[in-house]
Amino acid sequence: MSDTKKNIYKPSPISGFPEWLPQVRRVEQQWFDHIRAIFESYGFCNIETPSVETLDALNAKGNEGDDVDKEVYVIERLHKEDGDKEARLALHFDQTVPLARYTAQHFNELVFPFKRYQMQRVWRGERPQAGRFREFYQCDIDVIAQDELPLHFDAEMPAVIWEVLSSLPGMENEEFQIQISNRKILMGFLDSIGVSDLELMQAITRYIDKLDKLPQETILTAIGEEVLQRGFGVQKSLDIPEEIRPFIEICAQKFQNSEELNTALTNSRYINTSHPMIAEGLKELAFVMDQLLHLPKGAVVADLSMVRGLDYYTGTVYETRFIRDPLYGSICSGGRYDDLASSYINKKLPGVGISIGFSRLFDRIRQKKQLPAMSISPADVMVVLPSEELRSEVQSLGQVLRKRGFNVEVFHAPSKIKRQMAYAEKKGIPFVWFPPFDADGVHEVKNMSTGEQTQADAETWVRDA
Amino acid sequence: MSDTKKNIYKPSPISGFPEWLPQVRRVEQQWFDHIRAIFESYGFCNIETPSVETLDALNAKGNEGDDVDKEVYVIERLHKEDGDKEARLALHFDQTVPLARYTAQHFNELVFPFKRYQMQRVWRGERPQAGRFREFYQCDIDVIAQDELPLHFDAEMPAVIWEVLSSLPGMENEEFQIQISNRKILMGFLDSIGVSDLELMQAITRYIDKLDKLPQETILTAIGEEVLQRGFGVQKSLDIPEEIRPFIEICAQKFQNSEELNTALTNSRYINTSHPMIAEGLKELAFVMDQLLHLPKGAVVADLSMVRGLDYYTGTVYETRFIRDPLYGSICSGGRYDDLASSYINKKLPGVGISIGFSRLFDRIRQKKQLPAMSISPADVMVVLPSEELRSEVQSLGQVLRKRGFNVEVFHAPSKIKRQMAYAEKKGIPFVWFPPFDADGVHEVKNMSTGEQTQADAETWVRDA
Repeated sequence: MSDTKKNIYKPSPISGFPEWLPQVRRVEQQWFDHIRAIFESYGFCNIETPSVETLDALNAKGNEGDDVDKEVYVIERLHKEDGDKEARLALHFDQTVPLARYTAQHFNELVFPFKRYQMQRVWRGERPQAGRFREFYQCDIDVIAQDELPLHFDAEMPAVIWEVLSSLPGMENEEFQIQISNRKILMGFLDSIGVSDLELMQAITRYIDKLDKLPQETILTAIGEEVLQRGFGVQKSLDIPEEIRPFIEICAQKFQNSEELNTALTNSRYINTSHPMIAEGLKELAFVMDQLLHLPKGAVVADLSMVRGLDYYTGTVYETRFIRDPLYGSICSGGRYDDLASSYINKKLPGVGISIGFSRLFDRIRQKKQLPAMSISPADVMVVLPSEELRSEVQSLGQVLRKRGFNVEVFHAPSKIKRQMAYAEKKGIPFVWFPPFDADGVHEVKNMSTGEQTQADAETWVRDA
Repeated sequence: MSDTKKNIYKPSPISGFPEWLPQVRRVEQQWFDHIRAIFESYGFCNIETPSVETLDALNAKGNEGDDVDKEVYVIERLHKEDGDKEARLALHFDQTVPLARYTAQHFNELVFPFKRYQMQRVWRGERPQAGRFREFYQCDIDVIAQDELPLHFDAEMPAVIWEVLSSLPGMENEEFQIQISNRKILMGFLDSIGVSDLELMQAITRYIDKLDKLPQETILTAIGEEVLQRGFGVQKSLDIPEEIRPFIEICAQKFQNSEELNTALTNSRYINTSHPMIAEGLKELAFVMDQLLHLPKGAVVADLSMVRGLDYYTGTVYETRFIRDPLYGSICSGGRYDDLASSYINKKLPGVGISIGFSRLFDRIRQKKQLPAMSISPADVMVVLPSEELRSEVQSLGQVLRKRGFNVEVFHAPSKIKRQMAYAEKKGIPFVWFPPFDADGVHEVKNMSTGEQTQADAETWVRDA
């Protein structure tokens, strides 16, 4: 209420924290509704967890794998008094750690197998970088069981994801592929050739993960150098890459089904497929692939080069790539973990899950201008207000249409009809309703895209008429 | 993959950050869907803003009113390097400041009047206290116009809110009332009796706000003391409370419609209803009340004691209270502001809005055990898996039902039928589907609540059969 001239703070976007105009947000809502409907059609129930966890809870779980470097945002009260003692809180960086914590905390109140989906924002406390989100949505499904988790669920994950990704509005022209592997195969193979040093295993895994970017020979040379560097001697630095070569060759291939993969592996006399861990991994992978035969050819492939970096997965792993743009990276990833919540509870709780990188995918389709065009307003009908005297009558008409399921905006002022129609046009409202100016008159509705104008009755009007 | 015994971090709830079990979350989702549908039925479009604003943006707007003391959470990267220069970011504490910033930032891309709804989490960086949320949902509708905002929208707010609150599942037994006032009446009245000292006006406003908790005489005495304290002399400290008395008496009443209020005010010869500001406030309030005559009697009342504390409202103000528990505080509040975004843009953008304190309301109904009981699982049907051999057939059956719109969980293992049914029971899945064990057999469906079991065909089965 003061008249003093104010300083204006001109706002600008904050790097990594996206926001959309209403017409884009409507498509985003449509995506969420669509994903939710499919997740629920498979019996997944929803949960939400708080945006924060205690830093101790994040560290307890984070330190388990190799995720200690995850960038987190801690939160702090601006007006904190000295001496306030509270656990340090941080924004969650994924939905897996919160799920593990939730499952442990509510263990006695949950029914297992616990099938849940979660669609929330997560945060990564990274330096600002072009094209990198620091706040984004993920859509996850996971199943947690007690003691034993049937492989059925490992196969259900890609089936659900395929259904979601292939039917999202705007994804019609995108070709993508779900890659499936099982970490037991690579781990078993390394064990079978005598590589048991953990750091070396990790280094080799990292190189195999790069098979989509670097030539095989470069990778084999690099592995030899790693062996040397770690002090295993010159001979081993020559032997190990040669022993790995046949495996790398198979890693470079994609297999449409489990027979193809089995044939390739058994044909290679350098891979001992009867090694217990390899055999187990192959059996699991075959089960999963066989359950997915109803999907279109090429929807799912077995790809042993895919090892999900250094995450804490122990069996099945998944990634999803655009076929014409594989280097864009995975848009949907996950896998199985033998023991999800052992940082929080003394129970064996194996799980399997997969996560759609929602915001990254949505923004890609948005930037490619492939999102369906939607209007700004959710209104189906704008009712013209012919005069101030008719306001309450026109409001009642609006209520009649709303009761019948239509979204209706009654124009706010008895402005010139032209102006009222221009508003409907700008907001993309598809029908304009003209109530009569007098008691004898008739109601008419104009279809704004065809220009057709017809008589109508609020009690019986239908959109397609 | 290590065998070393691990330390277990036993998680516990974080005070003020609520989370629900799946069956409660399902009701929460139902509430959100319901609110969203009603907001959209009036043509409000949705936006979401990032969870954070720059601290400068929050302060630019926050300092405008008297909101400087709002407790905010600032966020900071845990692995921040010295010398990283970034604007300080804080979690938003409401949705009005982000709306103002959004409207200014996207001004040229929006269509006005801009009718938007927003349903997001907000955060208050308060000390932990029993029953006080630090993270909670708000559901807001606001309309922003350029230069002039028709009063129509001031009347639309309570109409929408009444429709929402009176139809939320679980609210059937709650009686509540929307109180409406217009700050111009009190401001004009104080001006008419010569009270123009801003601090004194604020102090008097604060006391009037307490009329629901303290007796009139106590309030008048306190006002006299305030006058004395502020150095206006003994005579004024006696005069002012006496001049305020007739207004306070009217404040203590609730009026069903604008005539009742007008009568009371014009009957009181101590209130100069022709004072321009009082007259304007009364005219606006009368318009709003008259537009709401279609609501049930008592749904909305005019209540001049309601002044919305020290917020930045300039005209119409709203609060909503439980009739049988008024001291619970307002569950839905808002008002009109002459100039929403002038901290961010050199334009006149008047707005009017109202906000449902979603989490506080939901949790009250939850604690009163009035929420509808919902099952854990969203599945309509659980399909029994009779044997491993029949797995792919049973999966196909599941797909047929899903295509027809049912949520279906196919049991994950060929366990004993009893065990499979116990799972459906525990998850609250209402129908169990029994595929035949052999090709000649028939399909049967059991209604879990009636126990009735009937023959069925996946292509034609309907829930109510």
